[in-house]
Amino acid sequence: MTFVVRCCVMEFQPGLEDVPVAQSAICHIDGTVGSLLYRGYAIEDLVRHSNFLETAHLLIWGELPPVEDLRTFEHDVYTHRRIKFRIRDVMKCFPESGHPMDALQASAAALGLFYSRRVLDNPLYVRQAVVRLVAKIPTMVAAFQLIRKGLDPIRPRDDLSYAANFLYMLSEQEPEPLAARVLDACLILHAEHSLNASTFSARVTASTLTDPYAVVASAVGTLAGPLHGGANEDVLDMLDAIGSPDRVEPFLDQCLARKQRIAGFGHRVYRVKDPRARILQELAEKLFACYGSDATYDLARLLEQKVEERLAGKGVYANVDFYSGLVYRRLGIPTDLFTPVFAVARVAGWLAHWKEQLGANRIFRPSQIYTGVDPRPWQLHRERGAASD
Amino acid sequence: MTFVVRCCVMEFQPGLEDVPVAQSAICHIDGTVGSLLYRGYAIEDLVRHSNFLETAHLLIWGELPPVEDLRTFEHDVYTHRRIKFRIRDVMKCFPESGHPMDALQASAAALGLFYSRRVLDNPLYVRQAVVRLVAKIPTMVAAFQLIRKGLDPIRPRDDLSYAANFLYMLSEQEPEPLAARVLDACLILHAEHSLNASTFSARVTASTLTDPYAVVASAVGTLAGPLHGGANEDVLDMLDAIGSPDRVEPFLDQCLARKQRIAGFGHRVYRVKDPRARILQELAEKLFACYGSDATYDLARLLEQKVEERLAGKGVYANVDFYSGLVYRRLGIPTDLFTPVFAVARVAGWLAHWKEQLGANRIFRPSQIYTGVDPRPWQLHRERGAASD
Repeated sequence: MTFVVRCCVMEFQPGLEDVPVAQSAICHIDGTVGSLLYRGYAIEDLVRHSNFLETAHLLIWGELPPVEDLRTFEHDVYTHRRIKFRIRDVMKCFPESGHPMDALQASAAALGLFYSRRVLDNPLYVRQAVVRLVAKIPTMVAAFQLIRKGLDPIRPRDDLSYAANFLYMLSEQEPEPLAARVLDACLILHAEHSLNASTFSARVTASTLTDPYAVVASAVGTLAGPLHGGANEDVLDMLDAIGSPDRVEPFLDQCLARKQRIAGFGHRVYRVKDPRARILQELAEKLFACYGSDATYDLARLLEQKVEERLAGKGVYANVDFYSGLVYRRLGIPTDLFTPVFAVARVAGWLAHWKEQLGANRIFRPSQIYTGVDPRPWQLHRERGAASD
Repeated sequence: MTFVVRCCVMEFQPGLEDVPVAQSAICHIDGTVGSLLYRGYAIEDLVRHSNFLETAHLLIWGELPPVEDLRTFEHDVYTHRRIKFRIRDVMKCFPESGHPMDALQASAAALGLFYSRRVLDNPLYVRQAVVRLVAKIPTMVAAFQLIRKGLDPIRPRDDLSYAANFLYMLSEQEPEPLAARVLDACLILHAEHSLNASTFSARVTASTLTDPYAVVASAVGTLAGPLHGGANEDVLDMLDAIGSPDRVEPFLDQCLARKQRIAGFGHRVYRVKDPRARILQELAEKLFACYGSDATYDLARLLEQKVEERLAGKGVYANVDFYSGLVYRRLGIPTDLFTPVFAVARVAGWLAHWKEQLGANRIFRPSQIYTGVDPRPWQLHRERGAASD
């Protein structure tokens, strides 16, 4: 591996836009043609042929596993889905009104207390940490969901697939096969998307060789911000605010006149329709065809049609968030769990980046452009003015 | 504020070395002359004239507070030092063998469950969050220290200063004034040091507009890594391994022959003696002169003398970690709490960077250099080879 040698002082790019921070072999996005590849495999192929655990294995170890390795991984994850009663007890101390993302960050960090012996150069330790985090994150999300209702969390069921078991633990009911299949596809679609803020924070935290539970907790805390996770909640809020089909056009007129962003449309990277949105739209159609449509879904379809009529020429299409909120609501997932479900999926990507960072680590220690005051002498109390904010 | 416009594709700098990631007015370091300024004030002046809470106020709000503002801040911090019994209960679920940094990350994140209503553009919300975090982090460190011994945490004492109260909560004994003064100076010295990995991770996490408890939890998780915090623990381990004065020279010979780093010596930034090390050395001398020297301290002085004889010409001097471990041990602080004490200090810097990031926020979304495989067709199970690790 060779690094390009720096020849001049770097310029400041807010948000590090277009600044490469890693050499990475995990994910490739081409926004001009709408392609998303995990380790070279098209996202369409993964949704069609794979499942979330196989995709997680692919992302983390780089290759599709031979069938016996996949069975071993599935078995290990299934048997590690339970969480210690002390972790449940931790969550029982949380206030019921607390946000599930805060609960997930705290409980992910707490896992580190139980499994913190760091042997990062030991592939067995790395594998064990991957298994534990992939297995326990959904259990912790589901546990807090029941605990905040005053109910005891229920045990994972070893006979159910990863996605089916997650829905079962959330709702206490065994889900329909189609519901589990759609959620599994959603998890695949959200498993990885290169260096957005949460994945980048995972790599920065990982670069001090801290334990993987701290890395995931850091990423969860980053994902919790409204500029990152939560866009699909905004879509539902918007649809609820629009309310009825006759108000779609006036709503759009207003957005365009005020140059407001329309929640669930457009994407920083994709200039054509987000490939994940295309896939999710098909799944949403199947889901609503099978379980019956609802007013929000019909409204969403109408809004999409109208937006495409007006804005497709400018490269503005529905993105993945536009459909995922609709799907999650139809699956019975509470709105404030949408971002935790995102975390359940993205933990695969975070762990892939953690492992890749360890393989060629250099601690992150960037520089700054100093814009502060010049050196100044000590100021006695009586010399001080009023504080600015 | 104007930004330099990017004129060419950025090159990849591992660890973002020399890449500016923020415009910052908080801290200025000049490694060639050994100067460290917080908001323009020399670190020497701050240790001589200020205390930790005043320094925290300076770092976070940019100016030394008028005396009435300082008294209000102190009063608010003192009255918020208590933690809710539910936070103590969370910690009581942690295994006693867990690392205090993992406990601190989990409990800092748990704070967000209680105070998560985010109104980041409201200065009162920001001030309240600052007060809570500065007040409660030391209480949580001390609480876990007692809980892991099977003891109930003790209440903070409103009549004690910030540093004195922290030592009191750790040891259950009111500390000598000199001990409190030395710890307070240590907190000032460690409060801020520009964009190292933990502070950078705080800014990345903050950039999604997540809550400040998640930001601090992310930074704590980053600081926990052995490449970042923990250097002062290494110094004590090294001194314990050397064991006796006659083994200092052979130890040094061995390090130099093998080109091994000597723990507590040299610094990435400082080409002359780290100004914090100079100050801490004086404080250590006072402390050991007053309370009596010990064999480890004498050994440390001898080692430092020998290293300077051989390596000062190459710009290798004792750094801040060389003395802080000796001082903390003399103050009765257990070795695995050294990094949590670092966090107690650095929370001031993290919060200053959080507030600064909010003032000119752009979400961090860097790019990558893709080094992975080309697009490839789906692979059936029977076509797959053995997995690599």
